Amino acid sequence: MKKGELVLLISRENSYLTNVRNEKMHTQDGIFNLGELLNKNFGDEIKTHLNKKFTIAKPNITDILEKRVKRLPQVITPKDIGLIISYTGIGPGSLVVDAGTGSGFLAIFLANSIKPGRVVTYEKDKRFLKVAKENIRASGLSKFIKLKKKDITKGIDEKNVDVVTLDMKDAEKVVKHAYNALKPGGYLVVYSPYIEQVISVTKEVEKKNFFDIKTVENIVREWQVEKHTRPKTVGLMHTGFLTFARKVG
Amino acid sequence: MKKGELVLLISRENSYLTNVRNEKMHTQDGIFNLGELLNKNFGDEIKTHLNKKFTIAKPNITDILEKRVKRLPQVITPKDIGLIISYTGIGPGSLVVDAGTGSGFLAIFLANSIKPGRVVTYEKDKRFLKVAKENIRASGLSKFIKLKKKDITKGIDEKNVDVVTLDMKDAEKVVKHAYNALKPGGYLVVYSPYIEQVISVTKEVEKKNFFDIKTVENIVREWQVEKHTRPKTVGLMHTGFLTFARKVG
Amino acid sequence: MKKGELVLLISRENSYLTNVRNEKMHTQDGIFNLGELLNKNFGDEIKTHLNKKFTIAKPNITDILEKRVKRLPQVITPKDIGLIISYTGIGPGSLVVDAGTGSGFLAIFLANSIKPGRVVTYEKDKRFLKVAKENIRASGLSKFIKLKKKDITKGIDEKNVDVVTLDMKDAEKVVKHAYNALKPGGYLVVYSPYIEQVISVTKEVEKKNFFDIKTVENIVREWQVEKHTRPKTVGLMHTGFLTFARKVG
Amino acid sequence: MKKGELVLLISRENSYLTNVRNEKMHTQDGIFNLGELLNKNFGDEIKTHLNKKFTIAKPNITDILEKRVKRLPQVITPKDIGLIISYTGIGPGSLVVDAGTGSGFLAIFLANSIKPGRVVTYEKDKRFLKVAKENIRASGLSKFIKLKKKDITKGIDEKNVDVVTLDMKDAEKVVKHAYNALKPGGYLVVYSPYIEQVISVTKEVEKKNFFDIKTVENIVREWQVEKHTRPKTVGLMHTGFLTFARKVG
Repeated sequence: MKKGELVLLISRENSYLTNVRNEKMHTQDGIFNLGELLNKNFGDEIKTHLNKKFTIAKPNITDILEKRVKRLPQVITPKDIGLIISYTGIGPGSLVVDAGTGSGFLAIFLANSIKPGRVVTYEKDKRFLKVAKENIRASGLSKFIKLKKKDITKGIDEKNVDVVTLDMKDAEKVVKHAYNALKPGGYLVVYSPYIEQVISVTKEVEKKNFFDIKTVENIVREWQVEKHTRPKTVGLMHTGFLTFARKVG
Repeated sequence: MKKGELVLLISRENSYLTNVRNEKMHTQDGIFNLGELLNKNFGDEIKTHLNKKFTIAKPNITDILEKRVKRLPQVITPKDIGLIISYTGIGPGSLVVDAGTGSGFLAIFLANSIKPGRVVTYEKDKRFLKVAKENIRASGLSKFIKLKKKDITKGIDEKNVDVVTLDMKDAEKVVKHAYNALKPGGYLVVYSPYIEQVISVTKEVEKKNFFDIKTVENIVREWQVEKHTRPKTVGLMHTGFLTFARKVG
Repeated sequence: MKKGELVLLISRENSYLTNVRNEKMHTQDGIFNLGELLNKNFGDEIKTHLNKKFTIAKPNITDILEKRVKRLPQVITPKDIGLIISYTGIGPGSLVVDAGTGSGFLAIFLANSIKPGRVVTYEKDKRFLKVAKENIRASGLSKFIKLKKKDITKGIDEKNVDVVTLDMKDAEKVVKHAYNALKPGGYLVVYSPYIEQVISVTKEVEKKNFFDIKTVENIVREWQVEKHTRPKTVGLMHTGFLTFARKVG
Repeated sequence: MKKGELVLLISRENSYLTNVRNEKMHTQDGIFNLGELLNKNFGDEIKTHLNKKFTIAKPNITDILEKRVKRLPQVITPKDIGLIISYTGIGPGSLVVDAGTGSGFLAIFLANSIKPGRVVTYEKDKRFLKVAKENIRASGLSKFIKLKKKDITKGIDEKNVDVVTLDMKDAEKVVKHAYNALKPGGYLVVYSPYIEQVISVTKEVEKKNFFDIKTVENIVREWQVEKHTRPKTVGLMHTGFLTFARKVG
């Protein structure tokens, strides 16, 4: 294991994401001597000074997004990202244009799905740009993400794009630019927290040569499977609506 | 465009998936002379003998799964596949073990997400194997899918697996094999149409050193955005429960 | 048992609603000699000529609504009526104003809940009036329902009303009349199939002195509890939105 | 207005439930001189010493249940009570047997729906009996509720019952007693927080001569209709399952 390498230390109760380095790490499970990692491999164990055992694992994108990425309010959820991926069929090599970047959460998640493809993400707000820049660096996926300081309502530079994802106010103003940027068969996806945006986006979409236009919402319900089995009492009733449309040509 | 190449012909009302070849194709929109495609590029137009215009597009995995893959009853839905992808964070290069193959729908979808990684899919039923084999060939993703005629309750050959997906009866009998096959931090995902299987799988999972154990269901509701805006009246109320668990080590 | 009395004949597989009379009734379970009922009591049995046994029961409002009332399209569902009753707390003695009557389904259901109170129901469309009149007579609750041929957007005659229920286009034009008709603490309830009406009604409601304004939708999911236990696959994803508001004074 | 009478004082922002009496009532809106109420009528106004205006209204059952009744954990919700009322069609004059009483919430709600009928409610736990007794008195519906200190799994005394409602552990042990107590066409309704009870109750129900057996759950989603329109983010994902069955005879 090399210095600087990212590792996930896991037990049944807890997990920690950290870099391999010659330092101690204080946790609620005791102190890890991270220097020990230099002589270990993935799958080996490491103990805290309280003798608690942890397995050394390679973190995946969900670990990194959960533990390393600074989230801003109202970030898009994994359930909604899952629908975007499975409804559009993007995969390795796809080209995605995304706006607004916000914390970069969606751009990072999609970059993990389309590498060695590229996500180009537009953000005009300086405060978000700063957070996004740090998050993209922390994700280890910088090679596959291009962060642009630009107002996407003014136009999209890319052509022959597989998917355009919009999570922003005024998304309806981007529909025509998305249409131009997309390749035939490519998808526009708009994430709208409220129904008024769904309506205004759909109106714009219908002016252009799109097909398979549809809006969905998905509700994920977590179950409690313990002594008895029942859905959890309280949960997320709403995140946003997802509007999909495919460009004809 | 080369002979044999797969193309999607799209208009606002309809789309057709076909191979480039020196033949005519009869459709409800008229007759296509597919030979014309040899002198065209993606993005060009082609007309039927009724003078209806279609754009020539490169099909993606959703087109192929929708139009080329023979589905068997109770196939897992894209919304559920989306959750599997976004909750486990699999991406290009991942190694997935899948059972039972059924029509191969899930294996094909995941192969599109993890190429140049590999999906190894187990099926013991001859009738399904035949359908799956044809579907995998039709998908164009054969290079990334290994179809095994084997009863997975007898064991899993692979090691250091990122994700094991089970959509089969007796999934609870595979939990211990999945545990052995997974790498630390890897995910077991079980798709259960009924709650009894959720309970028996969770029981087995809790005997092993797994963490982040959870069961969810997701309901996707489609909206109608026309003159008025409302959810569609009738829809899919249930497909299956998804149980997730991560191996400690 | 008297001639003309309404009875429900029930077996485990089937049930029939009929009047006691000196006639034969042909059914898929055989022929009933309804004259036999004259010498029987509720709880007794009666057999068809095929020797199938049925119990003689007193029908309740759900039987009558299901088997005697002619439904028009998009009738409000029992689940939504349940919410109206439990959220407004109406009961025996309440005064309800309802519009549009449509088939009379809601007026009849509410009459059953508030008798010896009164439901006054407004309908301006002649075709609906005819159906509603017949349905109200068939329900046996005529004494508690007053059917008015009148356009409720022109005004409500009643005062000191407990609940006003609106299931009609242009419901927003009735808000001010409902406000005047309601007693302090009384409820306006609007059933809206689409979200645009929810928005326009809420706008009007907020102009008046209402409190506890809220809009809800409810989704009832039926389960299949047989060899295995699971929600039914397909079901009603949407009927309508219910907007509630209470008059201050 | 008479001494002791229950009144609801309402403004757009707040409402108070109180008895008419010669006292002052301190609230966050200022001090009410409740003695003033003696010279007023429903619909009149009363002001606090801060000059805030309130309308004097007659409280309904929802006000009383919300403001006067002491709730115990996991009380059945109005949405579920609404389904019980609308699916069983109970109304004025019905006879209901209920167990376990708990706080009496369900018994009180149903008493309001079936008066001058009767709710007989069984509770064996002394601590609950005390709370229920106080709540029933506070509800003003004592005349229509009979509270029995008895273990209902030992038997039901009543005959010819319209509806039996069970919200208790071991509900499956009451199915045979409910069957005997019900009149032909009468309903058994079981409220089960977890799925294991649904399964065990359904098993018992199928041993007896019941028809129209079904289990449902309902999810009520509240919407936010303000500057923008969207479902509220967080809400109740689950309360309980409702199992319905009708006695043949």
